[in-house]
Amino acid sequence: MKKKKRSKSPIVNLLMPEIKELIEEKNWQLLKDVIPQWQPPDIAKLLEDLEIQEALILFRLLPISLQSAVFSEFDIGKQKKILKSLNNKQVQAIIFELEPDDRTKLFEELAPNVVRSLINLLSTEERKETLSLLGYPKDSVGRLMTPEYVALKPQWTIKEAMKYIRKVGIDAETINMVYVVDDKWHLLDDIRLRRLILAEFNQTVESIMDHQFISINANADQEKAVELMKRYDLIALPVVDNEGYLLGIITVDDIMDIMEEEHTEDFTKFTGIESETVGVGFITKIKDVPLKKLYRSRVSWLFVLLIMDLITGGIIKSFQETIAKYVVLVTFLPVLVDTSGNAGSQTAILVIRAMALGTVKMKDWLYLLGREFLVASALGVTMGVGISFMGIIRGGSFLIAKIVVLSMIVNVIAGCLIGILLPFAFTKFKKDPATGSAPLITTLADIIGTGIYLGIAFLFLK
Amino acid sequence: MKKKKRSKSPIVNLLMPEIKELIEEKNWQLLKDVIPQWQPPDIAKLLEDLEIQEALILFRLLPISLQSAVFSEFDIGKQKKILKSLNNKQVQAIIFELEPDDRTKLFEELAPNVVRSLINLLSTEERKETLSLLGYPKDSVGRLMTPEYVALKPQWTIKEAMKYIRKVGIDAETINMVYVVDDKWHLLDDIRLRRLILAEFNQTVESIMDHQFISINANADQEKAVELMKRYDLIALPVVDNEGYLLGIITVDDIMDIMEEEHTEDFTKFTGIESETVGVGFITKIKDVPLKKLYRSRVSWLFVLLIMDLITGGIIKSFQETIAKYVVLVTFLPVLVDTSGNAGSQTAILVIRAMALGTVKMKDWLYLLGREFLVASALGVTMGVGISFMGIIRGGSFLIAKIVVLSMIVNVIAGCLIGILLPFAFTKFKKDPATGSAPLITTLADIIGTGIYLGIAFLFLK
Repeated sequence: MKKKKRSKSPIVNLLMPEIKELIEEKNWQLLKDVIPQWQPPDIAKLLEDLEIQEALILFRLLPISLQSAVFSEFDIGKQKKILKSLNNKQVQAIIFELEPDDRTKLFEELAPNVVRSLINLLSTEERKETLSLLGYPKDSVGRLMTPEYVALKPQWTIKEAMKYIRKVGIDAETINMVYVVDDKWHLLDDIRLRRLILAEFNQTVESIMDHQFISINANADQEKAVELMKRYDLIALPVVDNEGYLLGIITVDDIMDIMEEEHTEDFTKFTGIESETVGVGFITKIKDVPLKKLYRSRVSWLFVLLIMDLITGGIIKSFQETIAKYVVLVTFLPVLVDTSGNAGSQTAILVIRAMALGTVKMKDWLYLLGREFLVASALGVTMGVGISFMGIIRGGSFLIAKIVVLSMIVNVIAGCLIGILLPFAFTKFKKDPATGSAPLITTLADIIGTGIYLGIAFLFLK
Repeated sequence: MKKKKRSKSPIVNLLMPEIKELIEEKNWQLLKDVIPQWQPPDIAKLLEDLEIQEALILFRLLPISLQSAVFSEFDIGKQKKILKSLNNKQVQAIIFELEPDDRTKLFEELAPNVVRSLINLLSTEERKETLSLLGYPKDSVGRLMTPEYVALKPQWTIKEAMKYIRKVGIDAETINMVYVVDDKWHLLDDIRLRRLILAEFNQTVESIMDHQFISINANADQEKAVELMKRYDLIALPVVDNEGYLLGIITVDDIMDIMEEEHTEDFTKFTGIESETVGVGFITKIKDVPLKKLYRSRVSWLFVLLIMDLITGGIIKSFQETIAKYVVLVTFLPVLVDTSGNAGSQTAILVIRAMALGTVKMKDWLYLLGREFLVASALGVTMGVGISFMGIIRGGSFLIAKIVVLSMIVNVIAGCLIGILLPFAFTKFKKDPATGSAPLITTLADIIGTGIYLGIAFLFLK
């Protein structure tokens, strides 16, 4: 029953006061007995909630194998702090125990001279492995893969294969999926362990092969791996070089992390933040990112939008005389352009997401435009009714009210049409439809909305 | 070599012209031989790209087991069309072959009378299973789980266990993870198949149990399952009732779908769309969602924002006299409030995502506010310099330029501070910080920005 509770709220939340007390009492012996029984993510959470000094003491109390499991749960900032607090031998032990893909991730983030000294701590073989993983481009599949998989030969019997798996499987990142290679290590097939188990002992591996498999090139982008694994519901994806040699595998847990990262990137792009400047995954270290980098990632879009906004000012200037005569018109400007921009952003996000999920394609644009026109008209009329009373009260005349209501309807429709056309236009020109969409639509809605409103006002009032 | 190509671009894109030709020639026999060799997702994609009539013919050519695999790849609209085109016996065969969780998903979306008639086509046992899955709340873990798992008894030997897995494993959704239950079916442990394989044949199951497992209640929200599986890197999560009885499992492929859905929901929320009105996962059927529902999901936020925007109008009205004297002030209003809103949205999304990823907590608010103040000041000064020339050219005087530059700096800082405080305020009041943030920040930046700008102008010009 206790176990179930744990799945609802991590053990660390429940026991935090007790643990703190033990630390205050410096009862290290009891802590040394209790904590290693937890899951690594829970221990990591505990250490993160503690003061750094206490955390380091507790960390050093853990057995080495658990140390590296907990270590790989931390973000890079914490990892650096821990490495600094340990002596060379302790560092070597942790680095050695880390999965190769986690090790690559760590090395990528450290300063080159630190990496060099750490790599020197590794055994020759481990060093070769790490250096070769680091040789692949940033965000490539090669950086993510682990060389710890099980490879079988087609001529083996199931019995031989099972014996081999028993021998080497303990070091593999997964044996749920095993791979068949020829003598030159060309990938021939992937086989689910369950298929192997369900086969007869004296069959050959070859006899249960279907020669159907999905693989990915080590130089491919990580997002491509996510796409393939989602599409084919894979639990592991083999990575090959240009000649089809098996280099490593990617497992589904790595993919989940990348999905989160992509999700974040989509959001930051959408609001006009260039995450390339700050580095992928920067949100997880937002508290430590240098302010200069944050500034740089944000300033260029803001500046582009500022220049675009000046057009709106130009439009206003050209209607200066009308405004001077009817200053009250200005009081409706914000509500008109904002509503248009808000409606347009809603439309855009629907289209952008539908495109990302593959529900909507280029060819659908006219159909969707038609549907959006109907929804936008209904929304426009609703907002028009909403503003009409204020038009009379604040505007002071039915004429002003009429101008405001009419502008509202046209503006909402215009905003929605911008919202639908912009993502299609971006896609047409091979740009990510999400890039800067939110502020871009607001700004375009401003320009067009101001023109529509003041244009209508000019016609009615001249 | 051919295989590798396939992983880069799905086979269906490569062969589409040939397939279309075969269909035109009505060469069904050859199609019947070729297509079943593909992966179900690829077949589904092919059928989606064809005219509905051709798609239905091809679909009926597939063997039953492949039919249901392909069927579960389709969205609900396509599924309905296919069901309509088949006779009762064919429908029964497909429904029977579907995984229970996919079947639940289908039934959830169909009209109640259709569900009733389909359920009647099932065998008694299958019917009981489906009805019980449908009994759990919407978006609950119970709706998602499959009862097709392997359960072992602790007293069995590894040999007995393996024999049992060979017998029943073929029907299970996964055997990568198997479960240990007592005679009353209480969940005792989960065991990775690899652990079982690596054990000796004459050991008991009990001897390799560690009694450490993570489980989830069937009534829990699906997002909770995602969180647990991500946190503990699980490939399957056992589902229990309030008494700890094992009811079913959730597998990692279902989780990836939910992650996508959550991602979409985050985005729609962010732009002020109430996805509850439209139903979860509505983006995948955006082309078929009734327009009335789309309207309803969007109108309420737009209306709330419209009311808020009227405040901006009120502020403008109270400075009417200053404006009447210096109409040129109006030309800078859009650029000032927009830049403030844009900068604020950037800030908000950084905080919202960092909160979602657990990097930032409530207690960090003051620290982040301090950092943001520095970045915002730098951005504000940059934008101030950017607008200064226009202030002189368009404003026509150094005084106007001074007002505009000063307002720009203060406005950008104000926007960023709103962007950082709003998510914390939402969290404080137990609201999702993403709800309507994008338009809300724009609108708040409008209100405050207009006040700042016209206030400064009034002071300098009076």
